[in-house]
Amino acid sequence: MNREEPVNSDAFENFGNSDELVELGQQLRVDSVRAAAAAGSGHPTSSMSAADLMAVLLARYFRYDFDRPDHPGNDRFVLSKGHASPLLYAAYKAAGAIDDEELLTFRKLGSRLEGHPTPQRLPWVETATGSLGQGLPIGVGIALAGKRLDHSDSRVWVLCGDSEMAEGSIWEAADAAGFERLDNLTVIVDVNRLGQRGPTRYGHDLDVYARRFRAFGWHAVEVDGHDVDAVDRAYDEAVSTTGQPTAIIARTLKGKGVKGVEDHEGLHGKPLKDADEAIEELGGVRDLRVQVQEPPSARSLRAVGDGSLELPRWDEGEKVATRDAYGQALAALGAARGDVVALDGEVGDSTRSEFFGKEHPERYFECYIAEQQMVATAVGFARLGWTPYASTFAAFFTRAFDFVRMAAVSGAGINLNGSHAGVSIGQDGPSQMGLEDLATMRTVHDSTVLYPSDANSTAKLVAAMADLDGIRYLRTSRGESPVIYGPDEEFPVGGSKVLRSSDGDRLTIVAAGVTLHEALAAADALGREGVPVRVIDLYSVKPVDQATLREAAEDTGCLLTVEDHREEGGIGDAVLEAFLDGRPVPRLARLAVRTMPGSASPEEQLHAAGIDAETIAASARLLVEEGVAP
Amino acid sequence: MNREEPVNSDAFENFGNSDELVELGQQLRVDSVRAAAAAGSGHPTSSMSAADLMAVLLARYFRYDFDRPDHPGNDRFVLSKGHASPLLYAAYKAAGAIDDEELLTFRKLGSRLEGHPTPQRLPWVETATGSLGQGLPIGVGIALAGKRLDHSDSRVWVLCGDSEMAEGSIWEAADAAGFERLDNLTVIVDVNRLGQRGPTRYGHDLDVYARRFRAFGWHAVEVDGHDVDAVDRAYDEAVSTTGQPTAIIARTLKGKGVKGVEDHEGLHGKPLKDADEAIEELGGVRDLRVQVQEPPSARSLRAVGDGSLELPRWDEGEKVATRDAYGQALAALGAARGDVVALDGEVGDSTRSEFFGKEHPERYFECYIAEQQMVATAVGFARLGWTPYASTFAAFFTRAFDFVRMAAVSGAGINLNGSHAGVSIGQDGPSQMGLEDLATMRTVHDSTVLYPSDANSTAKLVAAMADLDGIRYLRTSRGESPVIYGPDEEFPVGGSKVLRSSDGDRLTIVAAGVTLHEALAAADALGREGVPVRVIDLYSVKPVDQATLREAAEDTGCLLTVEDHREEGGIGDAVLEAFLDGRPVPRLARLAVRTMPGSASPEEQLHAAGIDAETIAASARLLVEEGVAP
Repeated sequence: MNREEPVNSDAFENFGNSDELVELGQQLRVDSVRAAAAAGSGHPTSSMSAADLMAVLLARYFRYDFDRPDHPGNDRFVLSKGHASPLLYAAYKAAGAIDDEELLTFRKLGSRLEGHPTPQRLPWVETATGSLGQGLPIGVGIALAGKRLDHSDSRVWVLCGDSEMAEGSIWEAADAAGFERLDNLTVIVDVNRLGQRGPTRYGHDLDVYARRFRAFGWHAVEVDGHDVDAVDRAYDEAVSTTGQPTAIIARTLKGKGVKGVEDHEGLHGKPLKDADEAIEELGGVRDLRVQVQEPPSARSLRAVGDGSLELPRWDEGEKVATRDAYGQALAALGAARGDVVALDGEVGDSTRSEFFGKEHPERYFECYIAEQQMVATAVGFARLGWTPYASTFAAFFTRAFDFVRMAAVSGAGINLNGSHAGVSIGQDGPSQMGLEDLATMRTVHDSTVLYPSDANSTAKLVAAMADLDGIRYLRTSRGESPVIYGPDEEFPVGGSKVLRSSDGDRLTIVAAGVTLHEALAAADALGREGVPVRVIDLYSVKPVDQATLREAAEDTGCLLTVEDHREEGGIGDAVLEAFLDGRPVPRLARLAVRTMPGSASPEEQLHAAGIDAETIAASARLLVEEGVAP
Repeated sequence: MNREEPVNSDAFENFGNSDELVELGQQLRVDSVRAAAAAGSGHPTSSMSAADLMAVLLARYFRYDFDRPDHPGNDRFVLSKGHASPLLYAAYKAAGAIDDEELLTFRKLGSRLEGHPTPQRLPWVETATGSLGQGLPIGVGIALAGKRLDHSDSRVWVLCGDSEMAEGSIWEAADAAGFERLDNLTVIVDVNRLGQRGPTRYGHDLDVYARRFRAFGWHAVEVDGHDVDAVDRAYDEAVSTTGQPTAIIARTLKGKGVKGVEDHEGLHGKPLKDADEAIEELGGVRDLRVQVQEPPSARSLRAVGDGSLELPRWDEGEKVATRDAYGQALAALGAARGDVVALDGEVGDSTRSEFFGKEHPERYFECYIAEQQMVATAVGFARLGWTPYASTFAAFFTRAFDFVRMAAVSGAGINLNGSHAGVSIGQDGPSQMGLEDLATMRTVHDSTVLYPSDANSTAKLVAAMADLDGIRYLRTSRGESPVIYGPDEEFPVGGSKVLRSSDGDRLTIVAAGVTLHEALAAADALGREGVPVRVIDLYSVKPVDQATLREAAEDTGCLLTVEDHREEGGIGDAVLEAFLDGRPVPRLARLAVRTMPGSASPEEQLHAAGIDAETIAASARLLVEEGVAP
């Protein structure tokens, strides 16, 4: 809470009758207009369409303790149409959570009231929105956690725009919610018929949306979104519906209440021209206060593990795929920690997350082939304090990249595991090869990117990532590779391992994952030829071990990076971070996947891409002898 | 065609009765089993479920000239469930397009028959699949081009799996197709009830899928996918339905025809254990040949422009946003070239693609807020020879990144324009800021990434990108910036411009877009202090102008990159490509967006992120005087 002074509870209205609700709706409109006017930008008309929907929800149905945003009994509200933030902030003011002075800081430098709301700034915001089509999927994740993990009675309310119904992610979410029978979830669709640049596909045809939600297993109600009694009945119907989520399809007018803008095109995302006149037309500034219902008392029923983590252990020389180590380590982590949950995009037999599923079925979530919803569910789980691990092929996280990007805006703590990295998967071909994942995950704000090359290091990193902040990405491989570390070796995030080293090293090879083993073979061959080279296992791609790379640069003068990934944005670029302080940079060369692979065996793929031991050795010779790169 | 010998047309069957169709289905199964057995991997059971559906289509409905894959009258077939490639190749063999010897090269190094089909290898494949949920969207794009651009009578057939119905992109596509009334489109859903790791959400409940397609405006037919007569009737219904696309929801069994695998779990993506026995159970190897119907004669009715390109021109010193220049240049390009089409994700008033829409409404496609479908539509258009430009906010291309990745696998030539790049958009906040786009687009295979900083260079690049190969990405900015180049200046892709230069330059600042103007201001301030620095406009981020960067490195010894983008994968990493030949690397330093921005004015954002003129000048001083980076 950021109340300037103790709120006088006498100021709170009862909202027992429709007139009071109408007044509250008008206040939310007025405050939306005022906030946007003060900012000189923002989306008041998109706020005005949903003001009555918000008023009835806030005064009659929403159960929330603004002093305790983490109260386990709290309902959760998600503003999927994030651009209608003035409405959200106007509601916060009506609830006494912020004061009028703060309301008018909207969109200003340093304000908590951003153009699109984020939980990094405001504790009552469940997730960052503003990329349309994400609020409902994340709301589904929260509702799923409430129902299947927390077994709570709290409800999830999501306010969507009609424009975002065109996003596939909405129907991915609708599918998941219908299938999971999430009767703790209500979506309110504010059908104001106008998008940013003009009418939506279906205008005020409410039935189109209702039919679709019904086809996806939902209960659907059509309603006049400006008739507070009808809205009240619709909410009542939503909370009394069991076995199905409810969609309330509300007919509204954009800019409702001000004739000059109401239902007019071309006014999206613009403050009202004459705010004072509009406020007068809306009946002037009010200061109604809503006593939001207290949440029912509830306890967090978090399952606890036995607390002692016993990671799987492998002997050096065993041949184990890092994806197998991932699955086993995750299962072990799940035994030790009751907060760990696993999700998979219908490839758990490939990513090996099914190992977790077999041991902890109540905390394993089959998300089917719906990567966006999988990541959204993970974000929802994280919001409720769970520690999710979501797995699919590295290639298929590209499908959910906007969700990963927005999770970073939310500051959500989620673990992502991308398996089947690189050309070394073999015959399945480029559609299944994660070749862009290091680049995409590295560019995410405050992310961690890990890429182990053996089973023991994988297990250690699976455990370590659980307690980091932000987006944590672990890249695993399909094929088996030899265990090269003992089970007691430690792998701090941000570290690396120097695996071959001598005083006379003439070059440093930096690699990770499958190419590390190729690099070791190359180094051994070069050593036999009298060309000693250093080899670094860069298992922590972000953050990168700057000290070790600098030392190698000083000692050997030249770094050759080798990666089963595109040449842009991966390990080759990551090593550069050690040399951005203006001081001398070593000579650099890079081996990466520059071709479009086809089907072939893993060995053929590594050779064709020029990242196998033979090519590494040949490149190293060139660099050492001729001073030029391949 | 790759026929080893002229095909004897006597060998072709008539397929006038059901028994022959049943035989053909069995042949497709046998050949799928044989191909996977020869490869030792692949997805025969997923092929066997759809074999009868394919047999009836090929023998009775599909109109195609395998000698002329670009025949304008050709029907188009898209295998959305790309892992069922053995079935596709078995069908090619039955059609006489490949021979049995080639069939058995499946998944081998150098074979055209990849694990998942791609048009880069086979001329009859319309688009690369293998990332589920993409075939239907791209099929919708092809059908839309056929109907609205080519006005052809050809039909588009898409074979989907039931697992991929969980992907939101399927419903994004269904929405677009239903709304556009694409009655030239038929989707066949092979409901074999089993995904990779187990049952799908809805098993054999065909009605779930039919209800959904109907809710999205489709005609839907439920059918036994192993009853060739019923399938025949369903196809007949599809081709005679007008005003709506048709979905054929077919109940099938995975592994159909071989008792040991039929409808069994745990056999996805695995060759049959005893192929010989299975082939015997399926009635043995056959060599039926299908005389696929010739396409109706048709001409390509490509609209032609007037041929003379008159790009808009601006005077130096004018203040123009590069997004405005993009819109105007695109409209001019559309006047000169009839093959240019524009698509937008319901933000055409922001990206300015609406300028094109106003002048060429018949070639402007409003895709609504459905970025995946927008990119898929562009891929479909490109397949039919059109030159698409798809625009949305740079941030929202992250939603479609898997489609961009797969478009590169297809070798599709598409132009993408991402507007509202970086923190400099101001108040709208991080959800709307393109901060990861350079990294994601650079890592795409064979992509081109352009980032102009003034209106005239934008116009030239808009025209230049039309004729490049692969994915071409243009980044534009929201705010106005001064025109710094004359309208006759040329901007070759892969080039750069040196805007400040002297013999005594002590540092080179490399920038593009909004930071270029900040860099120029910093350079001028430094010059007044007696610290001459070079400034390079890196408008071509990929490919990068290696020669100019190397010369700058030799002359000044140190490069400072400045970008309105995350520090990973953008301009800072791009310059490194000039120094990967093993020769000495200059000192490097980097200014980029390292914080999570909130709402603030554009100027405040640039300052807070440390990429404004003041910070650039301060950093340059440190580098020049102290030799250390900020």
